[in-house]
Amino acid sequence: MNAFGKNFRVSVFGESHGAGIGVVIDGVPAGIDLLPEDFIPDLLRRKSGAKGTTPRKEEDMPELLSGVMAGHTTGAPLAILFRNGNTRPSDYSLFKEMPRPGHADFVAGVKWHDFNDPRGGGHFSGRVTLALVAAGVVARKLLHSDYAVELLSGHGMEMLQADPSMLFSVSASLVEVGGIPLSEVERPGVTDPSLLWSEKLDEAIAEGDSLGGIVECTVGNVPVGIGEPFFDSVESMISHMVFSIPGVRGIEFGDGFRAAGMKGSEHNDPLVSPSGVTSGNGAGGINGGISNGNPIVFRVAFKPTSSIGMTQHTWNFSAGKIASLDIRGRHDVCFALRTPVIVESAAATVLADLLLSLR
Amino acid sequence: MNAFGKNFRVSVFGESHGAGIGVVIDGVPAGIDLLPEDFIPDLLRRKSGAKGTTPRKEEDMPELLSGVMAGHTTGAPLAILFRNGNTRPSDYSLFKEMPRPGHADFVAGVKWHDFNDPRGGGHFSGRVTLALVAAGVVARKLLHSDYAVELLSGHGMEMLQADPSMLFSVSASLVEVGGIPLSEVERPGVTDPSLLWSEKLDEAIAEGDSLGGIVECTVGNVPVGIGEPFFDSVESMISHMVFSIPGVRGIEFGDGFRAAGMKGSEHNDPLVSPSGVTSGNGAGGINGGISNGNPIVFRVAFKPTSSIGMTQHTWNFSAGKIASLDIRGRHDVCFALRTPVIVESAAATVLADLLLSLR
Amino acid sequence: MNAFGKNFRVSVFGESHGAGIGVVIDGVPAGIDLLPEDFIPDLLRRKSGAKGTTPRKEEDMPELLSGVMAGHTTGAPLAILFRNGNTRPSDYSLFKEMPRPGHADFVAGVKWHDFNDPRGGGHFSGRVTLALVAAGVVARKLLHSDYAVELLSGHGMEMLQADPSMLFSVSASLVEVGGIPLSEVERPGVTDPSLLWSEKLDEAIAEGDSLGGIVECTVGNVPVGIGEPFFDSVESMISHMVFSIPGVRGIEFGDGFRAAGMKGSEHNDPLVSPSGVTSGNGAGGINGGISNGNPIVFRVAFKPTSSIGMTQHTWNFSAGKIASLDIRGRHDVCFALRTPVIVESAAATVLADLLLSLR
Amino acid sequence: MNAFGKNFRVSVFGESHGAGIGVVIDGVPAGIDLLPEDFIPDLLRRKSGAKGTTPRKEEDMPELLSGVMAGHTTGAPLAILFRNGNTRPSDYSLFKEMPRPGHADFVAGVKWHDFNDPRGGGHFSGRVTLALVAAGVVARKLLHSDYAVELLSGHGMEMLQADPSMLFSVSASLVEVGGIPLSEVERPGVTDPSLLWSEKLDEAIAEGDSLGGIVECTVGNVPVGIGEPFFDSVESMISHMVFSIPGVRGIEFGDGFRAAGMKGSEHNDPLVSPSGVTSGNGAGGINGGISNGNPIVFRVAFKPTSSIGMTQHTWNFSAGKIASLDIRGRHDVCFALRTPVIVESAAATVLADLLLSLR
Repeated sequence: MNAFGKNFRVSVFGESHGAGIGVVIDGVPAGIDLLPEDFIPDLLRRKSGAKGTTPRKEEDMPELLSGVMAGHTTGAPLAILFRNGNTRPSDYSLFKEMPRPGHADFVAGVKWHDFNDPRGGGHFSGRVTLALVAAGVVARKLLHSDYAVELLSGHGMEMLQADPSMLFSVSASLVEVGGIPLSEVERPGVTDPSLLWSEKLDEAIAEGDSLGGIVECTVGNVPVGIGEPFFDSVESMISHMVFSIPGVRGIEFGDGFRAAGMKGSEHNDPLVSPSGVTSGNGAGGINGGISNGNPIVFRVAFKPTSSIGMTQHTWNFSAGKIASLDIRGRHDVCFALRTPVIVESAAATVLADLLLSLR
Repeated sequence: MNAFGKNFRVSVFGESHGAGIGVVIDGVPAGIDLLPEDFIPDLLRRKSGAKGTTPRKEEDMPELLSGVMAGHTTGAPLAILFRNGNTRPSDYSLFKEMPRPGHADFVAGVKWHDFNDPRGGGHFSGRVTLALVAAGVVARKLLHSDYAVELLSGHGMEMLQADPSMLFSVSASLVEVGGIPLSEVERPGVTDPSLLWSEKLDEAIAEGDSLGGIVECTVGNVPVGIGEPFFDSVESMISHMVFSIPGVRGIEFGDGFRAAGMKGSEHNDPLVSPSGVTSGNGAGGINGGISNGNPIVFRVAFKPTSSIGMTQHTWNFSAGKIASLDIRGRHDVCFALRTPVIVESAAATVLADLLLSLR
Repeated sequence: MNAFGKNFRVSVFGESHGAGIGVVIDGVPAGIDLLPEDFIPDLLRRKSGAKGTTPRKEEDMPELLSGVMAGHTTGAPLAILFRNGNTRPSDYSLFKEMPRPGHADFVAGVKWHDFNDPRGGGHFSGRVTLALVAAGVVARKLLHSDYAVELLSGHGMEMLQADPSMLFSVSASLVEVGGIPLSEVERPGVTDPSLLWSEKLDEAIAEGDSLGGIVECTVGNVPVGIGEPFFDSVESMISHMVFSIPGVRGIEFGDGFRAAGMKGSEHNDPLVSPSGVTSGNGAGGINGGISNGNPIVFRVAFKPTSSIGMTQHTWNFSAGKIASLDIRGRHDVCFALRTPVIVESAAATVLADLLLSLR
Repeated sequence: MNAFGKNFRVSVFGESHGAGIGVVIDGVPAGIDLLPEDFIPDLLRRKSGAKGTTPRKEEDMPELLSGVMAGHTTGAPLAILFRNGNTRPSDYSLFKEMPRPGHADFVAGVKWHDFNDPRGGGHFSGRVTLALVAAGVVARKLLHSDYAVELLSGHGMEMLQADPSMLFSVSASLVEVGGIPLSEVERPGVTDPSLLWSEKLDEAIAEGDSLGGIVECTVGNVPVGIGEPFFDSVESMISHMVFSIPGVRGIEFGDGFRAAGMKGSEHNDPLVSPSGVTSGNGAGGINGGISNGNPIVFRVAFKPTSSIGMTQHTWNFSAGKIASLDIRGRHDVCFALRTPVIVESAAATVLADLLLSLR
């Protein structure tokens, strides 16, 4: 299923080395401001180039094929296309013979009977997250629109702040790289790491190895009442979308796994104000699957990049035995560095769908 | 949204102190063996009664309203109803005035404009998980059926074992209670805790406090190829369903959060056989969102029970200030003790849907 | 798929001679007035008893299992159950051997491998339309609520009339029975036919034969802008639901089939007022799949009842040849007489879903 | 909702005078043969150029953006784009001021608050049916594939014929133009009308008026058992999709509206063979919403083209009164001439979805 959402519905398509990557977004209300340049900041954040990211450079300018006219959405579905450039024709048949450890080569081959597109991972490539980022840009435009304010107000859920741009302020950053916690100071400026974890990166680069990381996402100014029981709890929807991002191994909300070792008296969040503010936020801003007015907070664990420069071993289907494999090409040493904007986009897209599902 | 799944679709309904709890299951193939007594073992596992669980006793015998005849499914939707008994009429208006910490009282009141049913948590009660357990029983019947074998075989995904009852063997158990890891030996026989964590329970009971826990679930004998990219990865679907269970704070697959601190050379799972077996299982049996033939392994963190016997504080909407609150009634000290069968049911239900979505 | 709708979602279940028929309705906003007695008028209209309808009598009182409290909806899903009574145990195995002409006996047997429930048609029985009528009652409550007025107003689609009970006034009646057109005067009081078509009924009863009919449905006070292009046009949604009703052979909107023989200058409906009123209503109140402010008008053709008293012939699977078949039991001579309320319910349910899908 | 289908899911996008029209098709099994040239015959049939169709010429070559490699589908979603060419920049603001009779100008303006794209009808243009035709080509490839044969066989529904290209043979043709029935001989060669209805066309052209028509579609070699009760009957699904095609006013199956005037003894179709063949086909190949093995037959009524050369009257929102309107531009005099391939595509797309929904 390459579609997600009920009322803000995204459908992704594309392959790493095919014609391009794209997304169709259905359900966007008419009259939301949207310009091509609105996509640039988030696309730049996802982009490679910094230390620890792949040297493959792509322009990644979106083409808005439909649903937008004169700087606003029309009510019809948006289609957004990113043409692939800078693809390097090469022989990927090797990975059918010798599936790369940690990649989808083997499973995609079995599932799709070797008809799958193996070039650069095909539809399993991290490049498909471009579509998520584009959807996230549109979702945020909606979340920060007057439309959102009026919709919430119609449901008796108006926020205190007058400024729509404050609503659903989604922000994610790395909080751990290669097992090293990042201080608040270190978190911004990820593109120029000058600190402890930068050394860890250098070490991994030198070894031809790779690193993982943890991203924390906070959504501020969330009205009380977002989320649809029983199955479309805020956590259910966010985790569904987040685990679509390649390389995610875990997700936790509020106190997360730590909550399992706490006592009720420690973990419970008593209400301390009529607006829903609680004394702590161990619930991560969610009770019973519904936003409680406190910031939604969750953390996502990313595995280390699967493609590494070191020699690995894997099954060789031609030879009928384990054999050594060397992966060449351009790869992120720590793709987690590029994921905060993707996590934000996932959260924004989910919230846009839940917002439009209010009744 | 109280429905989940595309081809094996469950719709839940009901409240804790209303007429009952139920589930409609649509998409069940005709000819799956199913008898009322098939539900008993799992319902017993979910039941309360052991130390640390609520003394509220319920018979919880399912009534199969439709879709079953002469011991097999007919192809029409199944409707299963659990009548509520042993409800204690009492005044829940207090919780509108003073929302219980950690509960959905406040958010449900805002979302549903105080029209929500507050009795025993209403639709937010953990009792709704009865519906999940019932769905899980049907899902497992399907997963272990000849139908499943033939469907997989039609997709060229036959398993080595001849016995369908071995397919998708789902099994979950507590691995941590109140922060104390349980050894393999301790995990079974949860109803009779005689060990270290039993003392922890006694302590919490004495204090009028509550505990959380961690459940680990393993699905064995999973064929390669289950899971539907991009959005319906195995992890996405399982986490979506699992976060519907009240009180879940986190989920992780394989190496989980630990993976974020590993190097690629440590975390990658090289294939060591043509059937998909990998050297380790840090990926939790899933690559690119698709099952890789190794056991699917995930862990779920449950928070401590929200309702505790100790005096708490919360906002009093009548008084316009924080006030003290004492919750009476029958509650689990550690509801996590009752959740392994619910987690299994969630996993089985998701796998049934993904199985029927193969193409 | 036994579920319909995106935001007002109905899931039906049940069989003619099983425990009962039911429906789960998800997405109903909290605070809609609803009492058990609200169902009675429509259930009575669907009921048999009049000339030309089956003598099988059923009480058909709905049990509201969930989602309702103190006379209003709670926001949680509604489950409504009609227990079957007055079932006559009998041997339906005959119809596996000799499928009844015009019935689903043969196709259900092939589709569900003879595991289907053949008793009284099982899940294919017209009795399942009880679930539709119940859903229609809830849908109309929503369509006529203050909630609807506020939602429309929030979208800038307020209606002139102040009275919500005037919104979406759905009304259907027979316009043809057994090929005989009914005058306006004849249409009401269907339960006491004293006119030309009454003789036609007498004739069919005497012959042991059956009749069909045509129902016309009009929805008044529809705001401009209902319907979701491209696929969820008003016509698409209504026809989808209407063809779920057993025995429907055709549907047409506005000028319908006659439009195919008209010229554009005859069929076009010029706007004659700023509120959307057109000079004629050949479009049946819909342009481009979206309501245009004029009444939505459509006609539904029902076939004659399949079960007739006359001896018929069909394939005998045991004998391997065509053989004669006599169907005993209680049947409607003209089930179309009972369908106007079902058609109304279908229209109301669709409109409720489209209303909640506005954005 | 611009998406249709559960397991063979099409999402359309695009506007008449925007960048292009496109479709994303999700759920296509891997390994279905598909080449760009496979689209040409159906696109040519939809094309204009014959008498009675618009002189606007477009190349309409599809660009396959994803999901296809080396002449077969990969398992990933297909995205197909038709770039718009030959658009004539012009001022469509007139139609906001003076909505064209029979068009969506007025309703789209109200629904989308004048943010809609009015150019050439925008997303409401008949040009969007290009996306349906493209989806239909892919659907037919699937329906005629070895995959379909194996899937049916796995469900015990094998067809007698060995040749997959015979399965689900969909064929539609005009049976009435401008009220004049076409003989069997006249139906083919629609591009070169030399007969009675050709004169009718000449007359309409001379008058600057337009004509409608009726299309009949037959699907042969349908196995018994296609269709999913209760809501996804074959008729429900086909009518849903067919009413998405702009300009449809009615649909009927088998005896259709005529059935309402028949007696049961006339309309019932007794089985005359164990394979499901019935004596007549008044049911249009469907019982209880499920295919019965006989050809599926339905007729679709198309209205006359809304855009006509004659002077019309409509509300002028600036002037606040009715005023005269002259529509210039290139239009089909009888767009129904171009619809048979669109109706076929709709049927094929629905059948592909129902085929993949078998369980």
